[in-house]
Amino acid sequence: KNERGNYIATMIPGDGIGPEISQSVVKIFEAAKVPIEWENVEVTPVMKDGVTSIPKPAVDSIMKTKIALKGPLMTPIGKGFVSLNLLLRRTFNLYANVRPCKSIPGYATLYDNVDTVLIRENTEGEYSGIEHEVVDGVMQSIKLITSPASRRVARFAFEHALVTGRNHVTVIHKANIMKLSDGLFLQACLDISKEYPDVKLDSVVLDRACMQIVKNPDVFSSTVMVMPNLYGDILSDMCAGLIGGLGLTPSGNIGKDASIFESVHGTAPDIAGKNMANPTALILSSCMMLEHMNLAEKAFAIRNATLNTIAEGKHLTGDLGGSATTTDFTSAIIANL
Amino acid sequence: KNERGNYIATMIPGDGIGPEISQSVVKIFEAAKVPIEWENVEVTPVMKDGVTSIPKPAVDSIMKTKIALKGPLMTPIGKGFVSLNLLLRRTFNLYANVRPCKSIPGYATLYDNVDTVLIRENTEGEYSGIEHEVVDGVMQSIKLITSPASRRVARFAFEHALVTGRNHVTVIHKANIMKLSDGLFLQACLDISKEYPDVKLDSVVLDRACMQIVKNPDVFSSTVMVMPNLYGDILSDMCAGLIGGLGLTPSGNIGKDASIFESVHGTAPDIAGKNMANPTALILSSCMMLEHMNLAEKAFAIRNATLNTIAEGKHLTGDLGGSATTTDFTSAIIANL
Ligand SMILES: CC(C)[C@H](C(=O)O)[C@@H](O)C(=O)O
Ligand SMILES: CC(C)[C@H](C(=O)O)[C@@H](O)C(=O)O
Repeated sequence: KNERGNYIATMIPGDGIGPEISQSVVKIFEAAKVPIEWENVEVTPVMKDGVTSIPKPAVDSIMKTKIALKGPLMTPIGKGFVSLNLLLRRTFNLYANVRPCKSIPGYATLYDNVDTVLIRENTEGEYSGIEHEVVDGVMQSIKLITSPASRRVARFAFEHALVTGRNHVTVIHKANIMKLSDGLFLQACLDISKEYPDVKLDSVVLDRACMQIVKNPDVFSSTVMVMPNLYGDILSDMCAGLIGGLGLTPSGNIGKDASIFESVHGTAPDIAGKNMANPTALILSSCMMLEHMNLAEKAFAIRNATLNTIAEGKHLTGDLGGSATTTDFTSAIIANL
Repeated sequence: KNERGNYIATMIPGDGIGPEISQSVVKIFEAAKVPIEWENVEVTPVMKDGVTSIPKPAVDSIMKTKIALKGPLMTPIGKGFVSLNLLLRRTFNLYANVRPCKSIPGYATLYDNVDTVLIRENTEGEYSGIEHEVVDGVMQSIKLITSPASRRVARFAFEHALVTGRNHVTVIHKANIMKLSDGLFLQACLDISKEYPDVKLDSVVLDRACMQIVKNPDVFSSTVMVMPNLYGDILSDMCAGLIGGLGLTPSGNIGKDASIFESVHGTAPDIAGKNMANPTALILSSCMMLEHMNLAEKAFAIRNATLNTIAEGKHLTGDLGGSATTTDFTSAIIANL
């Protein structure tokens, strides 16, 4: 908190539609009297000796505030550029990626009653970044699984299951094939589960989980799913698809020292700057951020106003089937606060 | 062909419901006058010096006949046992796994009009089997991608696209993260595409593909998808889910020297021996086998009879919502031939 009694949070508006959707959050926070002041930073790739890094002002700000909200970032195409989204997770050791997927009342998809939470190990697995060319035409990528990282995210999942009252953790894995690496992940979850006698634990092989989800989309609706990095990438997009896509799903990257909440959709360059973007994913991510900061009442109010605006269906952006501008949609949310 | 003018094929009935569903295929082939004689072999794990292998009679038979139909196999649980399904693919270097997914008329799921083909690289990737413990609590699995295996499966996909008239190949990858390994796979597909000017090539990142499929299940309905091993495992189960599950989807493992066609569902021990199992996946797999042997007319007749029996809905097994026995269902197919 600063001298005015406000919290300071870092805002990374991002590229493409990023500035518009982050502006929407800023306005809603003002209207909801959220005691937060923003520090705006830009994240563009800093290239040095062929290694990509995050600009120092951005790093410094997040180190200080320990909390950030982030719009979509564009990663330049070309050899040597590492995804900036990824780099942020690595730089701040954001070990748990939390993605709730809950059907949005009034927004029709093929599916109803989806209400699951995905927790993705966010620092290793196939995302280790360790790759090499053995000989010409032979590439190896290392899938790295460690006990500390697996136990840490397992504990996070059990805590989440406890706090949310779900009391059920489902591990997703391919330990039938990757007996050592996924075997270690699975074992870590089994070990940690002993500390949580009131939380049920089960496990499902990844391919089977994917089949179950399309056959019966609410199959994981009472559970918290926890899984290695790549599987989380896959399943979270898949589950997002169930409820309407990445434009509607929030996400949080949780670390010990800092946490970054982000919308995981793209920069949508085709509609950028046209006041057409749907800010819902970033707004719902900001609500997760507020909860993380123990500002749960504000989170509750903003989430409700947003969901009610969607349910009313009068001021929807184009992707939701309406023709409202980003600012109209935002004003409607503010009116519903 | 033998002295009676018949082809010889190897039958691996498998475990659990395997004997019943393979018996169903045998009867249908007899009724359809398919010029094939079966050589029955058992596949159980042979353990030697901690290494699992396939029994010699089974290996010899497949080496000789070069073609096999296979029911589900149970792999004993415990350290050191490698999945027998996997081991068969490795032993015979079955480099391309082909899984068509087509909605079954008259069998209602959440989705219609699914009609895609997945081609999975079947020998490497995360399935390389190379794993090690670096130090206590640190495991590495090697994802291996080679140019020869990638080019080989890419060429197979382009040929398939050409022969089936789909004329469109879609590469599924995570080259944005695994720049070297998936990058090599993607590049191999781009290279091979130059030999097929009439086949369109595009590529989609795996997570995005999963989201697109659940949002719009027929999004890949005009294309042949090709992808590294693990992604094929995931996407093929997911797409199978779209059309009703693994009980309805055929599969073929194609190699240079031999090919094995298999149903990829489990052994269903709970209903084994009760004349309740649904043989559809194995029957449709046997049709793929017949096509592979240039017995396309027989394949056509058997597939049609099977689909008509399902569409009529009078003699369905329990999993399809009916109460017919495996033998009743089989007789109905034979009556429809
Ligand atoms: C942008 C990309 C690096 C990222 C990932 O692969 O993790 C994205 O798909 C996600 O899910 O956040
Ligand atoms: C049984 C198992 C080894 C196999 C795999 O993981 O490939 C199965 O899921 C499949 O898709 O054929």
